[in-house]
Amino acid sequence: MSVEIEFFFDVVSPYSYLASTQIPKLEAETGATVDWRPFFLGGVMKSANNSPPARVPNKAKYMYADLQRWAERYDIDLQYPSDFPVNSLRAQRLILIAKRLHSDPAPLARRFFEAYWAEGRDISEPEVLKEAIEKTGFDSEQFFEQIEKDDIKKKLEANSNEAVERGAFGAPTFFVGDEMFWGNDRLDFVREAARSK
Amino acid sequence: MSVEIEFFFDVVSPYSYLASTQIPKLEAETGATVDWRPFFLGGVMKSANNSPPARVPNKAKYMYADLQRWAERYDIDLQYPSDFPVNSLRAQRLILIAKRLHSDPAPLARRFFEAYWAEGRDISEPEVLKEAIEKTGFDSEQFFEQIEKDDIKKKLEANSNEAVERGAFGAPTFFVGDEMFWGNDRLDFVREAARSK
Repeated sequence: MSVEIEFFFDVVSPYSYLASTQIPKLEAETGATVDWRPFFLGGVMKSANNSPPARVPNKAKYMYADLQRWAERYDIDLQYPSDFPVNSLRAQRLILIAKRLHSDPAPLARRFFEAYWAEGRDISEPEVLKEAIEKTGFDSEQFFEQIEKDDIKKKLEANSNEAVERGAFGAPTFFVGDEMFWGNDRLDFVREAARSK
Repeated sequence: MSVEIEFFFDVVSPYSYLASTQIPKLEAETGATVDWRPFFLGGVMKSANNSPPARVPNKAKYMYADLQRWAERYDIDLQYPSDFPVNSLRAQRLILIAKRLHSDPAPLARRFFEAYWAEGRDISEPEVLKEAIEKTGFDSEQFFEQIEKDDIKKKLEANSNEAVERGAFGAPTFFVGDEMFWGNDRLDFVREAARSK
């Protein structure tokens, strides 16, 4: 049976964006399957009694340089959005809806990541989200019909709570079985763990 | 002229310990010279408006696992000291004294790191520090004669202030010229920066 890697992420998180671009490589190198699990980072941080890194001015400045270094290494576009952070609740719910309707939420999640982190679009705006859904080849009306449904709201909360209960405090968070890994910069450890299973 | 890498560290910081074990390799691979610059992490965190990672319970738990993974990768001993964190002021001042008296503070810094992180000794205790100084081949009396001197206290403060002014908010912090790198997990970026000079 194929090893499963759980990838908890939020499209508002730049290090989640970085990691998301490496998932195909991770799957190819390990033979593992990555389960894209959206959670709501704001809720996770709050439950875990954590605070955003950018609250520390020197850290915010450093993160900017650090993100550019990673983007260069990965050869991807990354521009710090002028409206960071935005509310990602709608985007994260839509990714859950993609999972429900089409089983693989990765294409839509990627599209949201790119819209926000490469193109500087405001992914809290329904119009931006709808355009991304259409671009992914899905029906945005069908998606938006579900966005306020209780079971979708509850599923996002459940994912967030589950992650925190299992030890998460930020994003991205990976699990290989019970082993947890935090951050784009731990992908090599994730790789090793998946290979050893 | 040889490229210089500045290594700001505090012996109370586990990720500084991890990084310290990789300095010889870093120097060998880049041809750069590493300048070991002790600072006082408590003061740096305070000035930078940062808070210790272990304040977040899930993060503290994760750090423990993460540190073990790195120790295994580096093939070094690392045991979380039962009395973490301890006051590192004396240890950091003694490293400055080593720099003044013997120019290279690295052997003493390594000894302090090992005493605390591999052997679980309490490096806030003068007796433990004296033993480490003697083991390094230095005269512990000569060192302790200087430990309360104003210029030593001020030098440690100056290093801490300088680091924060240049952008630091935690440990270890590396500089290659104006480029700053935070964390043991950024050593590969430090290596690339040193090579590109």
